[in-house]
Amino acid sequence: MKQFMDKQFLLESETAQNLYHNYAAPTPILDYHCHLNPREIYENQPFPNITEAWLGGDHYKWRQMRSNGVDESAVTGNAPAREKFQKWAETLEKLIGNPLYHWSHLELQRFFGYNGHLCGETAQEVWELCNEKLAQPDMRPRSLIQKSNVTLICTTDDPADALMWHEKLQADPDFDVRVLPAWRPDAALNIEKPAFLEYLQRLSKAAHIDIKTPDDLKAALLKRMEFFRAHGCRVSDHGLDDVCCAPASEARVKEIFAKRLAGGELTAPEIAQYKTALLLFLGKEYHRFNWVMQLHFGCMRNANSRMFSRLGPDSGFDCIGNSAPAAQLTDFLNALDVTDELPKTILYSLNPADDAVIGAMIGCFQNSEAAGKIQQGSAWWFNDHKTGMIRQMTSLANLGVFGNFVGMLTDSRSFLSYPRHEYFRRILCNLIGGWVENGEYPYDEKALKKLIKGICYNNAVNYFGFDLAKDPA
Amino acid sequence: MKQFMDKQFLLESETAQNLYHNYAAPTPILDYHCHLNPREIYENQPFPNITEAWLGGDHYKWRQMRSNGVDESAVTGNAPAREKFQKWAETLEKLIGNPLYHWSHLELQRFFGYNGHLCGETAQEVWELCNEKLAQPDMRPRSLIQKSNVTLICTTDDPADALMWHEKLQADPDFDVRVLPAWRPDAALNIEKPAFLEYLQRLSKAAHIDIKTPDDLKAALLKRMEFFRAHGCRVSDHGLDDVCCAPASEARVKEIFAKRLAGGELTAPEIAQYKTALLLFLGKEYHRFNWVMQLHFGCMRNANSRMFSRLGPDSGFDCIGNSAPAAQLTDFLNALDVTDELPKTILYSLNPADDAVIGAMIGCFQNSEAAGKIQQGSAWWFNDHKTGMIRQMTSLANLGVFGNFVGMLTDSRSFLSYPRHEYFRRILCNLIGGWVENGEYPYDEKALKKLIKGICYNNAVNYFGFDLAKDPA
Amino acid sequence: MKQFMDKQFLLESETAQNLYHNYAAPTPILDYHCHLNPREIYENQPFPNITEAWLGGDHYKWRQMRSNGVDESAVTGNAPAREKFQKWAETLEKLIGNPLYHWSHLELQRFFGYNGHLCGETAQEVWELCNEKLAQPDMRPRSLIQKSNVTLICTTDDPADALMWHEKLQADPDFDVRVLPAWRPDAALNIEKPAFLEYLQRLSKAAHIDIKTPDDLKAALLKRMEFFRAHGCRVSDHGLDDVCCAPASEARVKEIFAKRLAGGELTAPEIAQYKTALLLFLGKEYHRFNWVMQLHFGCMRNANSRMFSRLGPDSGFDCIGNSAPAAQLTDFLNALDVTDELPKTILYSLNPADDAVIGAMIGCFQNSEAAGKIQQGSAWWFNDHKTGMIRQMTSLANLGVFGNFVGMLTDSRSFLSYPRHEYFRRILCNLIGGWVENGEYPYDEKALKKLIKGICYNNAVNYFGFDLAKDPA
Repeated sequence: MKQFMDKQFLLESETAQNLYHNYAAPTPILDYHCHLNPREIYENQPFPNITEAWLGGDHYKWRQMRSNGVDESAVTGNAPAREKFQKWAETLEKLIGNPLYHWSHLELQRFFGYNGHLCGETAQEVWELCNEKLAQPDMRPRSLIQKSNVTLICTTDDPADALMWHEKLQADPDFDVRVLPAWRPDAALNIEKPAFLEYLQRLSKAAHIDIKTPDDLKAALLKRMEFFRAHGCRVSDHGLDDVCCAPASEARVKEIFAKRLAGGELTAPEIAQYKTALLLFLGKEYHRFNWVMQLHFGCMRNANSRMFSRLGPDSGFDCIGNSAPAAQLTDFLNALDVTDELPKTILYSLNPADDAVIGAMIGCFQNSEAAGKIQQGSAWWFNDHKTGMIRQMTSLANLGVFGNFVGMLTDSRSFLSYPRHEYFRRILCNLIGGWVENGEYPYDEKALKKLIKGICYNNAVNYFGFDLAKDPA
Repeated sequence: MKQFMDKQFLLESETAQNLYHNYAAPTPILDYHCHLNPREIYENQPFPNITEAWLGGDHYKWRQMRSNGVDESAVTGNAPAREKFQKWAETLEKLIGNPLYHWSHLELQRFFGYNGHLCGETAQEVWELCNEKLAQPDMRPRSLIQKSNVTLICTTDDPADALMWHEKLQADPDFDVRVLPAWRPDAALNIEKPAFLEYLQRLSKAAHIDIKTPDDLKAALLKRMEFFRAHGCRVSDHGLDDVCCAPASEARVKEIFAKRLAGGELTAPEIAQYKTALLLFLGKEYHRFNWVMQLHFGCMRNANSRMFSRLGPDSGFDCIGNSAPAAQLTDFLNALDVTDELPKTILYSLNPADDAVIGAMIGCFQNSEAAGKIQQGSAWWFNDHKTGMIRQMTSLANLGVFGNFVGMLTDSRSFLSYPRHEYFRRILCNLIGGWVENGEYPYDEKALKKLIKGICYNNAVNYFGFDLAKDPA
Repeated sequence: MKQFMDKQFLLESETAQNLYHNYAAPTPILDYHCHLNPREIYENQPFPNITEAWLGGDHYKWRQMRSNGVDESAVTGNAPAREKFQKWAETLEKLIGNPLYHWSHLELQRFFGYNGHLCGETAQEVWELCNEKLAQPDMRPRSLIQKSNVTLICTTDDPADALMWHEKLQADPDFDVRVLPAWRPDAALNIEKPAFLEYLQRLSKAAHIDIKTPDDLKAALLKRMEFFRAHGCRVSDHGLDDVCCAPASEARVKEIFAKRLAGGELTAPEIAQYKTALLLFLGKEYHRFNWVMQLHFGCMRNANSRMFSRLGPDSGFDCIGNSAPAAQLTDFLNALDVTDELPKTILYSLNPADDAVIGAMIGCFQNSEAAGKIQQGSAWWFNDHKTGMIRQMTSLANLGVFGNFVGMLTDSRSFLSYPRHEYFRRILCNLIGGWVENGEYPYDEKALKKLIKGICYNNAVNYFGFDLAKDPA
């Protein structure tokens, strides 16, 4: 029996162990998609306690506490921090097989030096240890990032954002990790949302363009893209919920936009036509800017109305939608490709039943603009666990060129989440090591080093075109 | 090489073996969902021969015999019992990898003491052995249940059922296993079926309420729920085929009901509106009664018209429908939750592609009413095999609190099916044991015992609220 | 660590090794579905070089080269053969986990005696070796087939085809492998395609029947079926893209046909009604002819318009459609079964999420006409890899009688593809061997030999009814 989460955690063969410790572990981290707050990085405030650090905003943990019957007061409510921590510890011991079990213990090991296991009985000792450590200066956000060997972070930002904190960070000589904005224009696409009109005003102001027509909107977005580019942005991101491809004439889109501005209620086809038109416009601009387009889809957000009205979005009440409509997704990519304006694209579906569909589809739009121009994104959100990562990587390998995969991102709101890269890398090395041990790929040290370093870091450097040195491989 | 289905069957590590033999094996069985006939339990008649016991009503076996090219006469027809058994034995030897292979041999080992393997060549010796055993008094239904260490059985019962056999069983001092009714009101929901009107009359009679309107129907059902509760019922069950959520006004539902009563043919939306309304009513009552709501969906029944007209339902001609419409299922749960009237619920889909969708969805409706208030049911019917159970449990663990899982049920029509719990428990212990051996969960004997005993028995005792002692853990 | 792709490649237990080497390896190959060109078999021309042999028409490889960023000129364009080979070698080393990695190396080992691994660095030595070998007389198409121990090949042929090359081959005393036509009437079903009318003329000519009505078309097809039967055909094949079942009256279908003949544009429902009618007609005739009906569905072809207009079909721009509509597929099978005219049928879906749906559905239409009358086809195209084969076989075993499976086919355009059978057989033997080693099936040498030989060869001989001796088992 292996010791609990020891040095060889998840590394089931000698080759896996060698690949991980020699090549994957020392490689830096390029976090090309996350939800860290640049202001928090800049301000670099200490965490008051482990409850705040772990449970302050982590809806993954909230969801499991509710699943364990914990009252909302001890999840997001007013219960004392110590009580919340106790409830979390009691939940954790039942989370056998869940990635939170591993993530939490990796964080305890790497950041707090705790090698036991957290459960109801050990909660007090862990509480004391963590809080003591968190009071030390090297446990503030910037230190956590630096200790994790991160070279570059892309946050997630609205086009109307002034990027003030990014400017401050980029001007700060005391912090050598690059923090770049990423472009997430969901609010401009979500024409059906009540806040749309208000958002247009915000965007108008930021771009100094009065938005009355789709053309105005495009001009405003383009101006903001240029602003983002000037701040180092090279990647966009879309949360699409559903995929659609409903092309319409410019005149039609103009009518739809006017109807919405006049307070009219749009039909489902009108919403789809508007979104298709704007997304096609943006896709072509991404291609021109040489930005990567990330599409996240397959999500049903805020499924619980009662809790949504109480806690708002991102509180742990989202779930997985049905499989993506394969024909519409293909049509959308094709509509950009037909004029050779399809940008580098990463597709992420929340529904794992889409894995093979995506794996086969990306193969239809590859070309010499980049190695692995169209990517299937790393196992996302509800798929971000050992099973999901093995499934995504195996599917990718079965259907495409695994050696070109751009690898892992954190997608997290927490500064303590970087061990998720370690988790991914151990699983990656175990997968590849297993193939080698089984005679399915030759034990060619040089080729394997290149593969591992590529998937961990170098492929992303190349793909996104960041001005970073590659890790020697 | 391990011996064929020996003591360590499916237990691939020492930890798995310890967990199974020390904790899982001695734990009693709580069969909260099955299709046993309470009359047969009460009457306790001997089986005339192994063909009757095994092939008398088991459409799982019939289906495989047909797949092996066996003529219907030797499946459900008039062929002699010995010939049918021969055909079954010849089919079985080709069923490598099928759960029937393991279930059949577990039954042969546990009930008949036969440790060989059944095939065409050994059919005669097995035939003789089994028939000899079946003639003994300790091989009648009640003994088979008692030998299997069962404490409680929930049968499946129509609201109009008088529960006479349950009353007799509960009054019988010679049988200490509790046999409770479960509430399955499919006939009241299936407004599109030809037999609907006739069923309303049956229900009217049972409830002593003349049913002319939806309100009458609700009153009648409520009265029967009280009757069922008085007989110990704590769980409902629905066979939904498709999931729908099509809310409509009371007036609209009244019209639809009236149209049906007048002999009109309903449209698909009308059927969905009626079903939604009635199911929402029932869900709220289940919440008030503190009953568990089981929803089984994703099934296409009676796919073969020719055989349906010859043999009727439940003859082995059902199959799996497309994935559940995730949005409608969410909307349905939300419609109950929005007024805080969502009962404890177990979701079972027949389509394994729904696993992740369900696993994420249940997390949106958990709260402090119960630990694991909303459950993903154990791998059901066409998923009830090693692969399916591993998949369901792994998915559950990836997405939720596996430690709160209420575990296995037989879902069977046969008194010989209890070894399916053994099969499940071996797979469960192998899964958990494997994680522990691999360093993914600590070897904490106390915690593991609690987990295993919980999933095997104690979680169900808690969850359903049966008046049973928990197994010490 | 096992050596790279050595004698025990993919055989992870002693039982697996014994089963493979003793039973699977020496069994001949019956290739009941492929895309080999009978003319090329007849003419038996040598390959000019390895680039021509490997990259001349293999869209699987083209797709991966594009995924690796290779310019189209070195994929299907005018780049020199040596350069194309280099680009392929550089792509291959990144294809870890991909079946092309294994297929390519199996071909290098079996046909060229090369046991190293092909990558950018070894490309030159492999180039020289392969080209030297290809110049030898025993490396022509017929020799490759004979070396592979193939007894029978079914090509894929249009009803209008004169089968001239089949006649020549059948008359050639120097070639003892049977090469039979298979019936693929896609062009007659695809009423929506621009080429439909032109095709009708071609068919009219071949059948000497003027086609003005659906009845004429049926008569022409029937005449051609008789012609195919006279040339040994026993199997049909359909590429359906989508599954549909939209029954319509004869009069309605006549109208639709007339509309198309008059140059009208058909609606989607009209297309579905026409296809349903014709496919039901053909299905019934297959039943009468005792032919096997193969249905391939779930494909979205030519997803990339730009490349389609440049390169045409079958160039590596196809992908996987959404899961099959389970209800329509069932209705279609039922519509044939209801009059007892459902032929032996093999269902292949390109979407692996359909596996369980198909596995359960086929069980609804089995009967005594054949053991395993309705089959789930071997893992097809994008699923034709280790993971996909294990998934398909495991699903089949979970849900049906695995012992009746008709096994592998190449589905290839290349004479070098026969090692795909070896690949399949190794995976098959490893799966079965693993079950035996794990105590899940008895180590009964005789039963295992029968199973293995059955799935590799004998089941197909029986099922298709070819006039071939079974391999002794």
